Amino acid sequence: MNVATPPKSPLLDHCPESLPAHAYYDPDWYAREQALIWAREWVCIGRHDRQAPGTLSPLTIGGQPVMIARAPDGAYSAFLNTCRHRGAALCQHEGQAWNGRLITCPYHAWAYDAGGRLISVGHATPTEDFDKSRHGLFPVHLRLFQGAVYVCLADTPPAFAPDPGPDTLKNWRMEDLVTGHVKEVDLACNWKIFWENYNECLHCPTVHPQLIDVVPIYAKGIMSPEEASGWSPENARPAPLKEGARTWSDTGQPCGPEFPHLTEAERAAGHTFLTHYPSVFWAAHVDYIRMIRVIPTGPETTRLRAEWLFLPETLAQPGFDIEAVTSFAATVLREDGEACEMNQRGLRAGRFRAGRLMPQEFDIFRFHEWIRARMDA
Amino acid sequence: MNVATPPKSPLLDHCPESLPAHAYYDPDWYAREQALIWAREWVCIGRHDRQAPGTLSPLTIGGQPVMIARAPDGAYSAFLNTCRHRGAALCQHEGQAWNGRLITCPYHAWAYDAGGRLISVGHATPTEDFDKSRHGLFPVHLRLFQGAVYVCLADTPPAFAPDPGPDTLKNWRMEDLVTGHVKEVDLACNWKIFWENYNECLHCPTVHPQLIDVVPIYAKGIMSPEEASGWSPENARPAPLKEGARTWSDTGQPCGPEFPHLTEAERAAGHTFLTHYPSVFWAAHVDYIRMIRVIPTGPETTRLRAEWLFLPETLAQPGFDIEAVTSFAATVLREDGEACEMNQRGLRAGRFRAGRLMPQEFDIFRFHEWIRARMDA
Amino acid sequence: MNVATPPKSPLLDHCPESLPAHAYYDPDWYAREQALIWAREWVCIGRHDRQAPGTLSPLTIGGQPVMIARAPDGAYSAFLNTCRHRGAALCQHEGQAWNGRLITCPYHAWAYDAGGRLISVGHATPTEDFDKSRHGLFPVHLRLFQGAVYVCLADTPPAFAPDPGPDTLKNWRMEDLVTGHVKEVDLACNWKIFWENYNECLHCPTVHPQLIDVVPIYAKGIMSPEEASGWSPENARPAPLKEGARTWSDTGQPCGPEFPHLTEAERAAGHTFLTHYPSVFWAAHVDYIRMIRVIPTGPETTRLRAEWLFLPETLAQPGFDIEAVTSFAATVLREDGEACEMNQRGLRAGRFRAGRLMPQEFDIFRFHEWIRARMDA
Repeated sequence: MNVATPPKSPLLDHCPESLPAHAYYDPDWYAREQALIWAREWVCIGRHDRQAPGTLSPLTIGGQPVMIARAPDGAYSAFLNTCRHRGAALCQHEGQAWNGRLITCPYHAWAYDAGGRLISVGHATPTEDFDKSRHGLFPVHLRLFQGAVYVCLADTPPAFAPDPGPDTLKNWRMEDLVTGHVKEVDLACNWKIFWENYNECLHCPTVHPQLIDVVPIYAKGIMSPEEASGWSPENARPAPLKEGARTWSDTGQPCGPEFPHLTEAERAAGHTFLTHYPSVFWAAHVDYIRMIRVIPTGPETTRLRAEWLFLPETLAQPGFDIEAVTSFAATVLREDGEACEMNQRGLRAGRFRAGRLMPQEFDIFRFHEWIRARMDA
Repeated sequence: MNVATPPKSPLLDHCPESLPAHAYYDPDWYAREQALIWAREWVCIGRHDRQAPGTLSPLTIGGQPVMIARAPDGAYSAFLNTCRHRGAALCQHEGQAWNGRLITCPYHAWAYDAGGRLISVGHATPTEDFDKSRHGLFPVHLRLFQGAVYVCLADTPPAFAPDPGPDTLKNWRMEDLVTGHVKEVDLACNWKIFWENYNECLHCPTVHPQLIDVVPIYAKGIMSPEEASGWSPENARPAPLKEGARTWSDTGQPCGPEFPHLTEAERAAGHTFLTHYPSVFWAAHVDYIRMIRVIPTGPETTRLRAEWLFLPETLAQPGFDIEAVTSFAATVLREDGEACEMNQRGLRAGRFRAGRLMPQEFDIFRFHEWIRARMDA
Repeated sequence: MNVATPPKSPLLDHCPESLPAHAYYDPDWYAREQALIWAREWVCIGRHDRQAPGTLSPLTIGGQPVMIARAPDGAYSAFLNTCRHRGAALCQHEGQAWNGRLITCPYHAWAYDAGGRLISVGHATPTEDFDKSRHGLFPVHLRLFQGAVYVCLADTPPAFAPDPGPDTLKNWRMEDLVTGHVKEVDLACNWKIFWENYNECLHCPTVHPQLIDVVPIYAKGIMSPEEASGWSPENARPAPLKEGARTWSDTGQPCGPEFPHLTEAERAAGHTFLTHYPSVFWAAHVDYIRMIRVIPTGPETTRLRAEWLFLPETLAQPGFDIEAVTSFAATVLREDGEACEMNQRGLRAGRFRAGRLMPQEFDIFRFHEWIRARMDA
């Protein structure tokens, strides 16, 4: 922190309008988002163990069929799941066996090599106007980031920019963690409603009675000490968790050994967030991480997939009770989901053109600016 | 009745076209109707006992979320069910408890007084550009009429004009009656198809074998003596019900004491209708009333909710058999529902641009004129 | 065959583009096809025993309600299933009894004679502006063809042109055959995808392991000897079925007596196809025929109805095992259905604008030209 320029309050200096109400339910707006956001941005599709080496798996991103290929040596690649002949899907189901060499269409046996080049057109005998080299699989950009797999359907991917920065959770060494618990939930709300909920704590006092006990500043409706009135950089930064608590759990106590490479500040923080629109965030504690993916399934429906990541030795503890360990955060997630559905239910009022953001909702405002920049492109 | 100007026959002097066929199935037409009719007209939402004092209830009118508030003292009011902050629904389920003072949003604790004024924004600290007085709940007009509750989402409500007039059923004193039976039915037809069915009796001979026995003029396909050929005001007006019958029932006999304040003419009529587009009609007899609400649920689906209203002492009779009492009219309703679905099934024929109304369908013509006036607005 | 002009290879001399990808999923394209193809072409609706004499049956063609009338003497006729009064469907369910004279609307008793002329308007008394003679049922063209019933909703039907010609299966005398087995299957694909699958055999080696054993040229991905490289009309034409096989079955042996009027060439062919876009094809063998109808049920869903036709004496054989007889072709149909669904799943890739046809896909190309001519009309 540069002492010469103390951080300003993050609070907004005005109360801007929210996105227009129809952005949360209109099918046309949704279709444009699929094309302009989900088919252009880096989208997290899971952990690096999402599928076994030597398999192909299908999934849908931005409404488009994608095939994730994992070679027997573990290397990932991705293509649109579409044969260039007449458009058949090359991969039909998760975990389809693949030897890492040819990807062969089960319809007419067109075969592509691991780089997507068209190698064979089966029994067909194309004429000279057909240029094999121009009929390879459509490539999809793919990258690994700290144990997570991302794809990007754009020709030229945008900058890879998790917030506040790619090193935020470096000391958690996420690539070495294992998934101990998974929870999927389908919400009756637009995906942006969930991100808005994530981006403010004004709702914490009403929605999260247990959480505000463990994180006292949340009881004031704020996310960080900087938002408190009267705060200045000279003041001591109060510990965010309550006295004696070290993590988000029923008891405030860790469920196993703490991550060994954290700094003292990281341990004291109680929670550290890493956010990557539009598809994922991580909430890292001293003993576990929640990784939550946001998956739009329609204009007014969203699937959340939450994974709890642990050190292997944590899960190996005798008598380790995964339900007890995860119930605290699962409750928070359930409460947020209910709040999101409540929000969605009120949006179709004809006279409600848009909401108003409060100064505390600076992160929602940034999210809206992020959305607007892409939808206006 | 002015003897100098005898009533003319109500029959149409030509055979006009019906509404265009697509008015009964096109999603765009339906969406415009939601906005131009259902979100602008007075819409009946039930009896005055629809919800207990000290509760809030949500419902949808014209596709919009509405909240009906009933104070502990029994007074009704209504608002769009939308918080001005980010649009959350304030009321989530029927019968939500309310003390008659603040209506508090369960998301961020924005609180409104019983008049809809914004009183608190919870933990938020809005900047000066945010004018609380301009962020009250969106009011919805509400009125009581003879025991029924109506709302109107228009800024300026239209005239309150049940047909033939608000005093038609005054002597039944509906506000003192109680609901003894409810029947809901979902029909696979556009809501206007049901109103058209209601508005003519040409179908009675083919569709209602029991009813035409009790109401002999219906066997001729007409609704009232004035439609009969050769009718003139000088002729005696024939009793509409068959010899000895006093009400619509299997036996023609009343199910309990007759309503005490009816005139002789009202008793002799056998049935008296009060119609209020687009949402409700009442069919009043000497011993009970049917109140039928029409609730569009999609371009080709409609919910009907029928309530049978009685004097309290009628229901209190020992051995009172509600099924036997209501079965006659329930049969008529079922027959009409089947006819409506039959009508809907034929409408998508490409060469069928519109139907033709018969002179006897003068009330359908008036209904169509009512629709056209609003859709052309 | 004219020896002066030997048949050219049917192979395409270039690799044309397929239809645009959105033609297989876009709801607007589908709606236009309903109007421009299904409501204009001759559409096969089943065998001549599809309904009993003296009945009416409803069905939907091109999204429109149609009524098929079969008089007590067995004669067929067809109308739009729409009363000219207010559009009610005249026929509600399959096998509705009809005496061959009046067709009476069950709503208001409008009655039409067997030719569709409006005879009665029930209790209505239309004014002079209503011309009964202009309010007959909308006629639908209907014709029988070798035991099959077709309808056409166009004002002026197009030429009746099964391919390669109406006499192709004349010697099978299909009007005398009986349906021994029916199989309906709903596919998650556009109807054109099924026709494309039907129109090429490049997929046979990968998709139909049993079939290529019985039809050896299919193992090379070709449909007929003319496609083989080096083929010339001077060469002997090889028998399409494997040595000793006479029909499509598990054993290659017929399931009963062979059709008595086939030529030697027809017996030796092993299979003879008759194709009639958009709705039906027949695959005729020496001992049975499969008749397969294609019924679009949505942009991405299609129903197939397969009927197996036999000589009456074949079905009468003691111990005749219909499951065993039909299992071979039922397997082929299942395999084709799975391939079609696989094809559909890959089509929504944004960068996939259209596929490329191979020279062997000349029949698909002709199908696409057939489609384009109608969609551009």
